[in-house]
Amino acid sequence: MSAAKLIGVGVGPGDPELLTLKAMRALGAADVIAHFAKAGNPSHSRAIAARHLRAGVAELPLYYPVTTELPACSEGYRAAIRDFYDGAAAEIAAQLEAGRVVAVICEGDPLFYGSYMHLHTRLAARFPTEIVAGVTGMSGCWSAAGMPMAQGDDVFIVLPATLPETELMRRLTEADAAVVMKVGRHLPKLRRALQASGRLSRAIYVERGTTAAEKMIPLSAKLDDEAPYFAVVLVPGWQERPGAEK
Amino acid sequence: MSAAKLIGVGVGPGDPELLTLKAMRALGAADVIAHFAKAGNPSHSRAIAARHLRAGVAELPLYYPVTTELPACSEGYRAAIRDFYDGAAAEIAAQLEAGRVVAVICEGDPLFYGSYMHLHTRLAARFPTEIVAGVTGMSGCWSAAGMPMAQGDDVFIVLPATLPETELMRRLTEADAAVVMKVGRHLPKLRRALQASGRLSRAIYVERGTTAAEKMIPLSAKLDDEAPYFAVVLVPGWQERPGAEK
Repeated sequence: MSAAKLIGVGVGPGDPELLTLKAMRALGAADVIAHFAKAGNPSHSRAIAARHLRAGVAELPLYYPVTTELPACSEGYRAAIRDFYDGAAAEIAAQLEAGRVVAVICEGDPLFYGSYMHLHTRLAARFPTEIVAGVTGMSGCWSAAGMPMAQGDDVFIVLPATLPETELMRRLTEADAAVVMKVGRHLPKLRRALQASGRLSRAIYVERGTTAAEKMIPLSAKLDDEAPYFAVVLVPGWQERPGAEK
Repeated sequence: MSAAKLIGVGVGPGDPELLTLKAMRALGAADVIAHFAKAGNPSHSRAIAARHLRAGVAELPLYYPVTTELPACSEGYRAAIRDFYDGAAAEIAAQLEAGRVVAVICEGDPLFYGSYMHLHTRLAARFPTEIVAGVTGMSGCWSAAGMPMAQGDDVFIVLPATLPETELMRRLTEADAAVVMKVGRHLPKLRRALQASGRLSRAIYVERGTTAAEKMIPLSAKLDDEAPYFAVVLVPGWQERPGAEK
């Protein structure tokens, strides 16, 4: 019998080929495969990893609660999410207590803005854990764009588009390169902040980077302000590179 | 004959298992394998990828010029580096003009602080290119540390330790999570900036993350100020996580 262990397995940004050898082996050897999904939807992360799961391996789907009826900043929403992660951690703990190796499939990198972190913080003090680093979503996006991102002494920053416009503008101005996440309904505000910081002309809008549904366009060429929550905007740095625009 | 193409192949942070399936296939199919190394030294990146190279495949080692006799900020140094990349790009262009697929082995991710970018900017307008995203060195480090890095609306920043102390302090204070690169002789200054920004107690010092030579220690427990140029300091964010220190 294998020794109980919780493994956070990064499976990369979406292209199933951008999964590491270590992830492939961890998924093939685990006793239980856990994955997150929206209730009623197939798991995106499971789809990335599907070809590496053993036939008939035990699976533990973890369904995010339906909370669209609650504002995301409300105490009710936060309580529902907290209860969800508490329950998911308890389900996994039961498997670990039975001596099993549980691999949690993580889109991108497990410890970089990932749901797995909520399980890790609840379980790492009680059980052995291992992290298999993955290619982040943002690496997938700038690689698909063929866009050199940061070099040398560049300052690189990741910002949520939820920040106030003046904060976005200031932080974009002070960084050489940036990735803005959670674009969604904040796109008009983000456009203004990019314009004011002189970054609009080099900004690239990306949805679902590296997947078959990938959409990529210079933000200045995008004529509407429709954007899903998970869209990102890349602002490449390294302005002194050969051929870089001024 | 294959169609000429330049491929930047990310091979991850050091552990040969943290290389993607896509990288493995690109390396196995290329006509020519290029890799960077210091003159007189074996290539680190080639060592990570060695098991995936076809026996007898053509190799094109690219040796950085010995420039330790020139100050890194001098015009002489910059000219030597520029000449080196110009020459390396010309060598690769000759292979591409002969119709070959040239894979350049890149530690970490090709377009994130990588030497490959200097080739890409010189060749991408003339030849087809492809980027195989890789696990970054920093992902490898925080995964090896088992340290949740950034979550939710966290602002994440990558800073060079070369910045002035007041700038380091201000930017560390304004970010939720940070990675500081190029630590080397700047460690005493970085310590002071971390202390002043209230981040010293959560800072983790890492050398050669994910390799057999990995060294990792809370910075507050590191008693000396010896650090190689490539050492990094991680400052995890997500302070409201369950169990996070206050």
